[in-house]
This record gives sequence, C-alpha cells and structure tokens, in this order.
Amino acid sequence: MKIIVDQRQLTKHINIAQKSISARTTLQILDGILLEAKNNKLKLTGTDLELSIETYLDCQIIEEGSIVVGSRIFGDIIKKLPDSPVEITSKNNNINIRCQNSEFNIAGNPGEEYPDLPLVLEKDSFTIPMDIFKGVIRQTVFATTQDETRPSLTGVLVELDNNTISFVALDGYRLAMKKIPMKTSIEAKMIIPGRSLTELNKILDDREEDVNISISSGNVVFTIGDTTVYSRLLEGQFFNYKDIIRTDHKTSVIVNKKDFQNSLERASLLAKEEKANLVKLSILDNQISIKSNTEIGNVHEVIDTQQDGENLNIAFNSRYILEGIKVMDLENIKLNFMGSLNPCIINGIEEDDYTYLVLPVRLAQDDF
Amino acid sequence: MKIIVDQRQLTKHINIAQKSISARTTLQILDGILLEAKNNKLKLTGTDLELSIETYLDCQIIEEGSIVVGSRIFGDIIKKLPDSPVEITSKNNNINIRCQNSEFNIAGNPGEEYPDLPLVLEKDSFTIPMDIFKGVIRQTVFATTQDETRPSLTGVLVELDNNTISFVALDGYRLAMKKIPMKTSIEAKMIIPGRSLTELNKILDDREEDVNISISSGNVVFTIGDTTVYSRLLEGQFFNYKDIIRTDHKTSVIVNKKDFQNSLERASLLAKEEKANLVKLSILDNQISIKSNTEIGNVHEVIDTQQDGENLNIAFNSRYILEGIKVMDLENIKLNFMGSLNPCIINGIEEDDYTYLVLPVRLAQDDF
Repeated sequence: MKIIVDQRQLTKHINIAQKSISARTTLQILDGILLEAKNNKLKLTGTDLELSIETYLDCQIIEEGSIVVGSRIFGDIIKKLPDSPVEITSKNNNINIRCQNSEFNIAGNPGEEYPDLPLVLEKDSFTIPMDIFKGVIRQTVFATTQDETRPSLTGVLVELDNNTISFVALDGYRLAMKKIPMKTSIEAKMIIPGRSLTELNKILDDREEDVNISISSGNVVFTIGDTTVYSRLLEGQFFNYKDIIRTDHKTSVIVNKKDFQNSLERASLLAKEEKANLVKLSILDNQISIKSNTEIGNVHEVIDTQQDGENLNIAFNSRYILEGIKVMDLENIKLNFMGSLNPCIINGIEEDDYTYLVLPVRLAQDDF
Repeated sequence: MKIIVDQRQLTKHINIAQKSISARTTLQILDGILLEAKNNKLKLTGTDLELSIETYLDCQIIEEGSIVVGSRIFGDIIKKLPDSPVEITSKNNNINIRCQNSEFNIAGNPGEEYPDLPLVLEKDSFTIPMDIFKGVIRQTVFATTQDETRPSLTGVLVELDNNTISFVALDGYRLAMKKIPMKTSIEAKMIIPGRSLTELNKILDDREEDVNISISSGNVVFTIGDTTVYSRLLEGQFFNYKDIIRTDHKTSVIVNKKDFQNSLERASLLAKEEKANLVKLSILDNQISIKSNTEIGNVHEVIDTQQDGENLNIAFNSRYILEGIKVMDLENIKLNFMGSLNPCIINGIEEDDYTYLVLPVRLAQDDF
C-alpha cells in the first residue's frame, strides 16, 4: 500500500474510527485501525466486535493495499504532523509515514488478519435530522442502567409505530421517553446499546449531515455522510413501560424549570454527602418547599408554582429527579403526582414529546 | 456574627482562600475557612500552616464576630446561590446562610479555635509587575524536584543582588533561571516552596494588580490588592548553580523554536513509551537530525539550523529538554554545547534573561 493523504482529514477520520475501539480489548489486533486503500479512497475501520465504524476519505493512491496499525500511536503521530500531505507506505508489515521533514516507521499487522465485520443485510431504513437525533441521545441514554445483570436495560428501546418513533430508557428508578413524529410505514422495535449511542453522539459532534438508520436482524446501521456505524442490538424483553406512564393525577404543579433545577441542585449539596441523596418536597398553597437534612446541616428552599389539585409531601433521590430535569430545554415544566408512593411524571406544558418519570423514596409523613 | 455580603464577591474570595487549604490535612479545623467580620470588612483566612492566605472584601456588618466553616461545603453553597446579597449569621457554632428563597444551616467551629498565623515581621520589600511575575513562575517552578529528600530543591531560589532578581530552579537533570532587572538596594537570598508559587499563580490568574513581596526571617509575604499570601521559606543550602552555567561552547546552533519543539514532540511520541524518553540529536552541516528508536518503531526528524562550531552527537531525555523549550516565548532560540557529555545551555539570541540548562544522557558514539 502506498498513498498520499491530507493530514487534517486523516486526523479527523482516525478520531472517528477510534470511537469504536475499546481500551480493554483482549484481542491485540482490535487495538488497531484497519487501513484499506482502493478506488482513490482510504477506508478506516475500527471495531470492538459489538460496535464497528467504517469511515472513508479521499486520498491519492500510488499502490492499493491494506494494513492494521496501532490506533493510539497512529492517531498520536498523524495529529502531531504538520498540516501537509502525508505519505503512508506499508511493506512487510512495516508502516512508513513521511510528512515534510518527519519520518516514522512503526510495526503493523497484515490487513487479512483483521476480523470481518458482521455481514449486515439492511432491511428497513429511515432518516432523522442530526440535531434531533443528538437531542434524543442526550435526553435518554443517561437513564439506562449500568447494571450488566439486566442487559436489555443497558440500552435504549426504539419503537417505530403509527408514524412515531419512541426512544425509551429506564433503570428501575426513572424512565426517560422521547417521541418524534415521522411519516413512515415501518413498524419495528429494537434495543440499541447505550454505549453505541454515546459513541455515536461523539461522532455527530462536528457533523452537519442527517443520520440514516437501517435495521437488520440483530444489528442497526447508522450512516452519516462518509461514515457508517454498525451496532449489535441487545436481545431480550424490554420492560413493559407503557403501563406505568399514567395520565391521571391528584396533584399537578407548573414551575420555572431553571429555578426548580437550581433549588434542587442547592438542596443536593448537602444531600449528596450521604448515600440516599434524599430531598423532601412539600407542595402546599402554590409553593414547593424543598428540604434536605444531613449530618452536615440542613437546607430549605421555597419556589412559587401554579398548583392544581391536593397538597402533597413526597421524597426523591435528588440525583434521579435532577438528571431528568437538566436535559429538558424548556422555560416551564409540569410535575404530575398521584400521591407520595407513585411516580412523578414530568413533561412540558404544551410540548409532550419528552416524558421523564421518577420513582419517589418512601418516607413516613412524620419525616417531612 | 451577622453580615450581608455580595454573592459573587464572596465566591471569588472563597476561591482565593481555598488555595492554601490542603485536602490532606490531619487537623480538622484546617479544613475550614476562618470568617472574621470587623470594620465593614469580611476577612477570609485559610492555611495549611506552611502556606497561609488572608483576603478581604467589603460587607455590611450587623454584628461583628468570627466563625470557622468547612471550606469545601461553604464554597459549594455560596457558588450555587443566586447573584444576590447573602446574609450570613453565626450563633452557637451554627452558620445560617440566607439568599432569596434559600436557607442553609451548617455546623461551624468557634473562631478562637483557629490557629494563629505566624507573626511576620516584614523587613525588605519590593514590587514586581503582575505579568512578569506570572512569567517567572511559569518559567521556573516546573524545574523544581518532587523529591522530598532534597527539600531545598523543591523550591525556587530567589536572589536579589546588583539591581537584579534571579529566580533559579533545578532538580539535578536541568536548571531554569530567569533574571529580572530591578532598581533596588536590597540584597537577599531565599528559597520559596514550589507549591506556594504554584498556588500563588492560580490566585494571580484573574488579577491585574502588581505583586508586592516582603521578606522576613523564615517567611515571605506576597501582597496583591486585598489579598495577602504568607509562605514559609525552605531552609538549607541551595545547589551552587553558578559554576555549571559556563559561557564558552564548542558547538552553537540557532533554530526556530516552534519547529524544534514540534520535532521533539513528535520524536517523543515513540520515546515516551519507554522509561528513558531517549532522543538522539546529531548536529551536522547546519542541520539537526533527531532520532528515537523504541520497541514500537523509529522516528527521524530533520531541522535546518544556523550552526557555529563543530559537529556533535548528543542524547537527551526528551521530557527534560522539551519542558524548558516549551516555556520560552521566542521565535528563535540558541543551543550551546560543550561536547556530548556536558550540559546543553539554551537561551534567546538577543534576550538572555532566561537560561535553561539540561544534562545529556551518556551514550556511546556507535549508538547514534
């Protein structure tokens, strides 16, 4: 293989391919990036066998070929080169890199030793605008569980049905759901690993293109311009979440989102020192009073609200209620309650495309 | 104590006082900040008994008094409050903090339990412009040793003599020296702990005032506007550095600083994977060739220079040579050599206010 390629473009595409490479791989060759030069394109491939990325860039090919090169050292070298054409030559599993007055030789592995990516037979596909897809990832992935003993909940459920795509994540303490309207006849259901979406989000950071999503059995394929991301899907049943999102309520309050978030964050300053992260809310006469008592001291916050329905005392793990509120980009939000033992459901006043549900912590009424 | 104080001002001054507080203190009260309200000023004091900071801000005093409050939690709370007046009341070792609709109560300790700062009898004093002092810290402190068995070398030697202040740091592998002209009749010599200068630099970050420096026996006092920083001085003899900064040379090259730094950084990409960090320089026919060979591979860089004197092969620990070059803000630099076994001395072409000296690594000539 012998090619000439632009330093900045190559740096950018190495960064993309690296997103799929795990620092803790046990297969040495998976530490590498596969370079393949063919038809005036350089293709970079990275994989951890669950998440795979292929990305293409233009290059001048003097001799076609392929080689696997250590991902980190290759990325470090290319990044540090001057902004000039880079000549990359592979011969006998050695990679020679030249740029202006710099020359590197590092050992590689034959391209043939790199594992084949899973053969994906794409079936249905649809497109989501970039900014909307980034919002979906930001508003759902954080609510997945880290608990590997419940594998299906480490992912985000994606359901296409009735011209709507729903994205749902939950971990047993809270649930985040985003709905996007979409004209499509596809009906489908899949669970995408949270990690795949997190890495995908990093790639989207400096991109403008929309995201095309193709579903196949066992895999999902995201195509963004010259980059293709393959993720294995999670197997198993997702939690039957629809039953817990009730629409009736006994208490409902509208509150300024920023004020409420700030008060909860202050109340958490003391709360987070203890394991329970406990904050106590009392809804009374168009005000929410937030209290937290810990060994360090106590805090009391008061916020004005528009209250509808009965008064209520209810307690939460401050982290779980805060994480959902933080990702809501709204001026005012509505909290709906069904007593102190049932989940609180939070959404916008007019917009109901995002729903966050959080379970309360059971406390005796005397403790408020 | 009962005071009303501006939230932003208080946040800023807590940040300053916190710089002297060690996370690893064994005396619980030293985790705290001492608040003292008197004469329409709030004074904040932090100390780890070696580095002490006092900083003053305006406040409205309803009742004078003092209290010690946990530095981290107090800082976290004040930072998170709205930008409004904050009322702070201490009573029976409880601190009550109110701001708009927020109220905190946390436990404190009586002001009387806080240790007295060392009584400093200031003798000679002089003033250094802020930006120059920041430059001095940046160009010297990194060259101090972390090795506590050589305590005097963990600090920077400051010498006032002949209308010049010299700042010198060295660790046995390299030496950094900055000289500033100054009209003063003071003659003095002191070793300031590197850590004190590092923390001082953080305080200087968002300040415009010049730095007044007072020397007393065993201590140095820095005054910057409303803030006073006291540092213990290090005892013991400093290394007699003057003998090693020789002015004659057998080889001397002038090189573009940025190009040389970039090449060394690239050569270090492979070098840093091994413990020795070894880079080999060959100076020959107005070029420097830089090479590094490691298990991962090899790199070869070539840079044009203006050479004066004989050709030379010399090897360095890349970290030590790079760290000095990085802090030199010059277009071109001059490297002076006296054979492959003697230190390399680096400075500007016209400006010689900064000198960096680095020891070579001894290699057989066959190894180049």
